[in-house]
Amino acid sequence: MKAVNKNGVLKVNGLFVTFEGTDGSGKTSVINQIEEKLKAAGIDYLRTREPGGNRISEQIRNIILDVRFTEMDERTEALLYAAARRQHLVETVLPALAAGKLVLCDRFVDSSLVYQGAGRKIGIAEVAEMNKFATAGLEPDLTFYLEIEPELGLKRIKKNRQNEINRLDKEQLDFYHTVANAYQQLAQKYPKRIVKIDASQPLADVVADTYAVLQQKFNRGV
Amino acid sequence: MKAVNKNGVLKVNGLFVTFEGTDGSGKTSVINQIEEKLKAAGIDYLRTREPGGNRISEQIRNIILDVRFTEMDERTEALLYAAARRQHLVETVLPALAAGKLVLCDRFVDSSLVYQGAGRKIGIAEVAEMNKFATAGLEPDLTFYLEIEPELGLKRIKKNRQNEINRLDKEQLDFYHTVANAYQQLAQKYPKRIVKIDASQPLADVVADTYAVLQQKFNRGV
Repeated sequence: MKAVNKNGVLKVNGLFVTFEGTDGSGKTSVINQIEEKLKAAGIDYLRTREPGGNRISEQIRNIILDVRFTEMDERTEALLYAAARRQHLVETVLPALAAGKLVLCDRFVDSSLVYQGAGRKIGIAEVAEMNKFATAGLEPDLTFYLEIEPELGLKRIKKNRQNEINRLDKEQLDFYHTVANAYQQLAQKYPKRIVKIDASQPLADVVADTYAVLQQKFNRGV
Repeated sequence: MKAVNKNGVLKVNGLFVTFEGTDGSGKTSVINQIEEKLKAAGIDYLRTREPGGNRISEQIRNIILDVRFTEMDERTEALLYAAARRQHLVETVLPALAAGKLVLCDRFVDSSLVYQGAGRKIGIAEVAEMNKFATAGLEPDLTFYLEIEPELGLKRIKKNRQNEINRLDKEQLDFYHTVANAYQQLAQKYPKRIVKIDASQPLADVVADTYAVLQQKFNRGV
């Protein structure tokens, strides 16, 4: 764990692990199974996701998700996500890391980079720079990118609905491709931090691959 | 007016003027008088201040000012101010500038730099960098810093209350001094943009000094 200086106050010792991927990549199922394995192994961990249940971030989230606010600028939205992220970090993630815990977080800054930076075209570098203010430079020790063809991800999501791919789906697919390309760029830029997992495999194999990497990192010491 | 590229869309032509100063510097009274002069001169202007009355920024402001939220981190607060600023910029300031108007804005990024950056000790440079994301690089063409000794400002504020300076006032004075020092730093760093006005003078003189500079800038062409 990189020591982090939250305005000169905090030093963290835990292991900060994030999960990333486009919709339909199976993140939730994978984290569920990883949780079971950690419980069985008696490892002290915290599972979380933004906004993380604190009341300030929840209020911010309400503004972001308010369907009436169609006039919301994409940079306003990115700043609000960063504000909610900051509060979740301070109230939930940093204390757990300071207590030496393994923290599993479903999505983190990378999601803003690919969805707002690339998907909404603000620019990855700009969103990254702004988010450094929110994180005060804290980076995950390890990030799993659950890699899947956007078409396969969409099929998984649509499983319980009608199964044909329509015009709206095509637009969604274009967006997913943009996002997936951005994830690939990030994985290339941060090869030590970001580990790609083939998420098109059967769930048991995805979990096995993920847990093997996690164990290796964990055993190497925090 | 610097041409501004809001994600490649917008080019502004107006004149963007901001007013800054510690509490008790008389900003509101000065802007009121400047408004009268502009009306008399038949100049098309817009007077505004953050959050500027748009519904998204008002909602954000409600979170910032909610007295229950004592756990709010100072970086969360700075990000929320920047989000509200962005939306006000997009909905109010940029359209007015694009229409060629003179925009008078009561406080802008400089206030975040001195209050959050210096006053709350996040760091001026960090708050400045983050706010560049909110403004997409837009800077005021002209900023009036209404300079006043913090002691005099405090006396003005207390005018209608009891007149002695107590322990809480001393703490407030320390804070004002930090903020005033930060304003001085900014004025030194941006001598072309920031014009210092001696706000300890009688109001009529403060207004005359301010309007003279404004007129000069205005006549030089936009």
